[in-house]
Amino acid sequence: MRATIFYGPGDVRVADRPEPTVLDPTDVVVEVTAGCVCGSDLWDYRGVRPTAKPRHIGHELVGVVTDAGREVKTLGIGDFVIAPFDLSCGHCQACRHSFYSACDQVTFVGGTDRQGRVVDGGQGERARLPFADPSLVKVPGPIDPELIPSLLTLSDVFPTGHHAAVSAGVGPDTTVVVVGDGAVGLCAVLASARLGAPRIIAMSRHADRAALAREFGATDIVAERGAEGIAAVRDLLGGDLADTALECVGTDLAMEQALGSVRGGGRVGFVGVPAGGSQVPIGTLFSRNITIGGGMAPARRYIPELLEDVLAGTVNPGMVFTQTFALDDIAAAYEAMSNRSAIKSLVLP
Amino acid sequence: MRATIFYGPGDVRVADRPEPTVLDPTDVVVEVTAGCVCGSDLWDYRGVRPTAKPRHIGHELVGVVTDAGREVKTLGIGDFVIAPFDLSCGHCQACRHSFYSACDQVTFVGGTDRQGRVVDGGQGERARLPFADPSLVKVPGPIDPELIPSLLTLSDVFPTGHHAAVSAGVGPDTTVVVVGDGAVGLCAVLASARLGAPRIIAMSRHADRAALAREFGATDIVAERGAEGIAAVRDLLGGDLADTALECVGTDLAMEQALGSVRGGGRVGFVGVPAGGSQVPIGTLFSRNITIGGGMAPARRYIPELLEDVLAGTVNPGMVFTQTFALDDIAAAYEAMSNRSAIKSLVLP
Repeated sequence: MRATIFYGPGDVRVADRPEPTVLDPTDVVVEVTAGCVCGSDLWDYRGVRPTAKPRHIGHELVGVVTDAGREVKTLGIGDFVIAPFDLSCGHCQACRHSFYSACDQVTFVGGTDRQGRVVDGGQGERARLPFADPSLVKVPGPIDPELIPSLLTLSDVFPTGHHAAVSAGVGPDTTVVVVGDGAVGLCAVLASARLGAPRIIAMSRHADRAALAREFGATDIVAERGAEGIAAVRDLLGGDLADTALECVGTDLAMEQALGSVRGGGRVGFVGVPAGGSQVPIGTLFSRNITIGGGMAPARRYIPELLEDVLAGTVNPGMVFTQTFALDDIAAAYEAMSNRSAIKSLVLP
Repeated sequence: MRATIFYGPGDVRVADRPEPTVLDPTDVVVEVTAGCVCGSDLWDYRGVRPTAKPRHIGHELVGVVTDAGREVKTLGIGDFVIAPFDLSCGHCQACRHSFYSACDQVTFVGGTDRQGRVVDGGQGERARLPFADPSLVKVPGPIDPELIPSLLTLSDVFPTGHHAAVSAGVGPDTTVVVVGDGAVGLCAVLASARLGAPRIIAMSRHADRAALAREFGATDIVAERGAEGIAAVRDLLGGDLADTALECVGTDLAMEQALGSVRGGGRVGFVGVPAGGSQVPIGTLFSRNITIGGGMAPARRYIPELLEDVLAGTVNPGMVFTQTFALDDIAAAYEAMSNRSAIKSLVLP
């Protein structure tokens, strides 16, 4: 089959790969309906994060089950499924508390399993996916093709934006600043609006992203950064800072912006994949009583409730996909995101 | 009047100081009934934390109001008051949200005010205290002398331990590991028991402190540290880690112990004053979905509810005072805490 391989910074190509098969009795194989490129894939693409190469890449997908191991109970051939990017065992302590992303055996789509065997990625034709029962979510058919982009966001970016908001305690009584205007930041805006936040300030300096942020529920846009950005937040909130901030980038600067945007006793939800070993300054947390939580999203926990809204048409997170590419054009799909001509690239095998 | 002055590491002495008077219309002057030495004073005493010197020291006190500025409305001469260590304006955004410790004008007992004028400490005969109305809590008389030690803990250590527990979300459904067996850690044990935690593991390797931890409600004591300490926690919890951990020391090692003691998706409440610019490793928070919150305690917020229990006799946090010193013996009061012969030193002027 054909699948995307990451050869090194700036070099992603489609190659012929072994056909995926069920290896463990709890595996399924899926035919990928749609995959996409994630902002965190760009850390590799741009050479910011050292990574093994060459290797499979792409951790988001929706698809149709074509084979299932003998212990798989809840899924059958022909089922349309959403694969959370983080597959989990379902029975360790973290899983029992619904923190699937902190599973003792967490396994990433497009990575390798605990035995070191390839788990195929979402930027390809087919994929073997371990821990099928506790991880994948079946969508009742028939599937409206128009919903595919929004269903695909449930694989990662929408639950991840939602996790930032949940971790910060966003609700009807909280003002929110969202740092980061990529697909995750935009989904954090959407999630905050869905949770009832009355005031959502999106930090964006790109017209297309700011427009989508407004579409998703942002009440205000701030283009400034650093101290000027914080001053702009104060201006919008009558001299106050925000109750919560959502860090959706993964850099020290973004974390600093988030910490500086919240009031004493405020909360920061962070989901940006930390690039370059960033640290949280404990002195700031101590003196300003800021709580910080979040991290890698337990996507599986949130998919059912978010799926309900996607199927009802009350949210349309698929709007983050502003360009669509054939699998053979994967290099262009990466480049479009890297040069910001696309907010997020959809990839059709 | 006589008050303690910190001259440098290992050198605290009582000296003659100017008599405190009302300087601002919102000040009161109190006659100190009792003060004490805090674990965080030892950072200075041991030279761990650089500090201006010579200067007043001692941020905990209970006393009787002897003079009040003309704008003070809720307190009068003769009132017995508890002074939270962190005095606050009462009307800034942080104060409006009850995070008094993050007040824009937070002012410490034993420090200086925003105009650079001395705020007398608790290790002396009398003290001028700013922001009296929003900060001090009056205790209805007559005061039972036996309750003085417990009332004095409401100035800092009991609300601080309580803040660690509240910040970690301790309750009837959470197991707790308490890192640190000083007065704050012991009060965190007491607070956790008061909040209904069913399993409280105190990390202690000192017999006197471990005994008091048990008295305060610890169900288990772990003497090991590092990976062995974490293994001991797992042994006690049937292979699991704790839902929450309370960091009550302020060192990197203690933070590491707390982070390593909680399950994926767990919460760390931290109140140890960070010594030496410690940092929180964001990669650990990210991959294990650990939430961290706490910091300097908004003591004023918690005093009324904790006071109720002290007056009712259902808690006896004053047991942390294992030795009592006259003001003139202040050097011995410090040395007893520094060499661990006292858990906490009470000082009577």
